[in-house]
Parts: sequence; structure tokens; C-alpha cells
Amino acid sequence: VLKKWRVLASKNVFRNRWVSIRQETCETHSGQIIDDYFIYENKDVVIIFALTTAQQIVLVRQYKHGAREIITEIPAGVLEENELPETGARRELLEETGYNASEFIQIATHLRSPSNSASRDLIFLAKDAFLAGPTAFDETENVETQLVSLEQLQQYLQAGEISDNGCVAACYRVLDYLKLLGQTEKPSEVA
Amino acid sequence: VLKKWRVLASKNVFRNRWVSIRQETCETHSGQIIDDYFIYENKDVVIIFALTTAQQIVLVRQYKHGAREIITEIPAGVLEENELPETGARRELLEETGYNASEFIQIATHLRSPSNSASRDLIFLAKDAFLAGPTAFDETENVETQLVSLEQLQQYLQAGEISDNGCVAACYRVLDYLKLLGQTEKPSEVA
Repeated sequence: VLKKWRVLASKNVFRNRWVSIRQETCETHSGQIIDDYFIYENKDVVIIFALTTAQQIVLVRQYKHGAREIITEIPAGVLEENELPETGARRELLEETGYNASEFIQIATHLRSPSNSASRDLIFLAKDAFLAGPTAFDETENVETQLVSLEQLQQYLQAGEISDNGCVAACYRVLDYLKLLGQTEKPSEVA
Repeated sequence: VLKKWRVLASKNVFRNRWVSIRQETCETHSGQIIDDYFIYENKDVVIIFALTTAQQIVLVRQYKHGAREIITEIPAGVLEENELPETGARRELLEETGYNASEFIQIATHLRSPSNSASRDLIFLAKDAFLAGPTAFDETENVETQLVSLEQLQQYLQAGEISDNGCVAACYRVLDYLKLLGQTEKPSEVA
């Protein structure tokens, strides 16, 4: 039988503006005591699959310093304190790409790293997206926008051109929700 | 034009058996100096989509203390120092489920959290998986194995029953690789 652990003690052991880590003493399912379980207190993230009226997806390319790589993904960013998820999704999409949308639908919630964090990805479909104005990202950010067709997006996923876990999961979940998966297989089967 | 950052200084600021964090001073694309960029030095993870000869997928259920939840996913675990990815994939599958397989094919590599870590998910398809013996997980682990059909797996994904980012991404990538996506839509369209 699976059982949750009991937390016997919890204290912050590292904290600054960007990082917060707790050390917990836990009693496991079997009664064993672990006194060095570390939890990353990371914030939730909104991730936005923006589909334009011309059926194109809004991608972003930017340098990610953890991976030391320039990567392609869909817009995403940290949800601010007390911000409604939909408000955060609209804000991040606007800031990174200048796009807005008539409707933001939350279609899934994923766990980012459940072994050591409660942080989640809140996945939004932004319907009928349209260019609303200039971008407004931080000075530390440098984002290029790219529009691709649904078929190109699926080719990017199949080729590993999009490789961020959260982005890959979000794209497939939204494509599945829209019943658009498996649509690109047919031409290659015929060829 | 997108540019990589330059690292001017890097030092470890928190380290123990489980966690390692570096603080870096960076010059960004625009020449701005940031002296408090934090990098989590997390290890790579192997994640295994094991498909039995009866076309069933091997799922695991276990408590994850970061999320405070019992979750369903495919087998996964940290790659050990100097361990070949395929060796790690076979070891994790055996330890968590008692299953082995005739062939392990690495079909994708995903980034786990590219903003603040270089850590990757190495995704394996284990073909013709079979029950080889008892499980052998740590005393702190408590894993239940469940076999599901390909159709059930897709229903779990669509319902958010499987919600770990890395697992969702891996399942869809392997289903896409096997050209099995979109197969479950047809019955409900007919009904």
C-alpha cells in the first residue's frame, strides 16, 4: 500500500531573491526517519500555446543560461505572487511576443519536478491570437518570435528541435486536446 | 541576433550529498553584468517507456515528497557517475519494476529546466519488455507496478492522470516515434 510521508521538521537552509531551499525531516511509509530531504521552493510557471487566426503557433527563441544553449519553445514564465493564472499567461505572452488573444483556456496542469518541488506548469491555449503591440521583455532577456504551422510544429517535436520538457509536454497536450495529433503521419506513409 | 552569455566567475554556494548550487557572474548578450545567476547542478535522468510483448506499458505509482502526492508515471531515475545511459535505463527499470527488455533504444533527449540547469532526460524505449525478477528499490522507495494498454495510456495522458512533465513529454515522444498517436480518437468519433 502506498502511503504519504509525514513531515516532522522543516527549515529553510538557503534563500535569496532567486532560490529558496528547505531541509525536511520526514517519516517515510515504512517508519524510517530521513533528516536530509531537500525541497526547492520554486514558483509555478504559466506556459502558453498561442494559436493565431491563421492557424499558426507563436514560438520563441532565446538563450537559456542553465543549458548554455539557444532554444526554441512556446512562451512561458513565472507566475507572480497573487497573480491569477490567466492574467499571468496573458502578461507573459504579451511581454515575450507582443501577441494577445481573445480567450485563454487552461487545459492542463503538470508537475515540474515532483520528487523535490511542488512547482507546476499551468498550460494555456490562447485562441485567436493576434499581434497587439511591441514586446516588453527584461533587459536580461532577448527573445525572437517565430510563427510556424501546426505541421511544422509537429516536425519540430519529432526532430527534437523543441526539447524543453515542459514545452514538449504542453505542445503535445494541447495538440491532443485539439485532436490534431497524428495528422502529419499520413503524407509520409503515402510517399 | 541571439547571443550566448559569457561566464566571468562561478563558485559553489551550497553543496551537500543531494544538492549543489553555483552562483555565476555573467555578461549578457547586451553587455550587462549579472552577478547573481544561480545554477542547479542536477544529474541527468533516464526515463524508460517499457513496452511488453503483449503491447502493454509498464507504469509505476509512488509517493513524491516534493509534490506531496502519489503519482503515476513511467520508470525513471538518476543516471549514476560514469554510467552508460543504456546501462542506467536497464538498471532503473529492473530496480523499480523487475522488468528487463531485449533492446533499449534512446529516442530523445529533453532539457529538464534549461533556465537554471543543464540536466537532461534521456528517454528510452525498452522493446519486448518481460518480467525478469523481483524489484530492488531503496528502503525510502515504495513502488507499485501497473500494466496498461496503449489506449489506456493515452486516456491517462488526456485526463491528466499522468502529470509529471518529463513523463508526459517522454510518453508522447515515444508514442509519436511508434506512430501510435491519434489512434484513440477514432472510436469516440464513431460513437
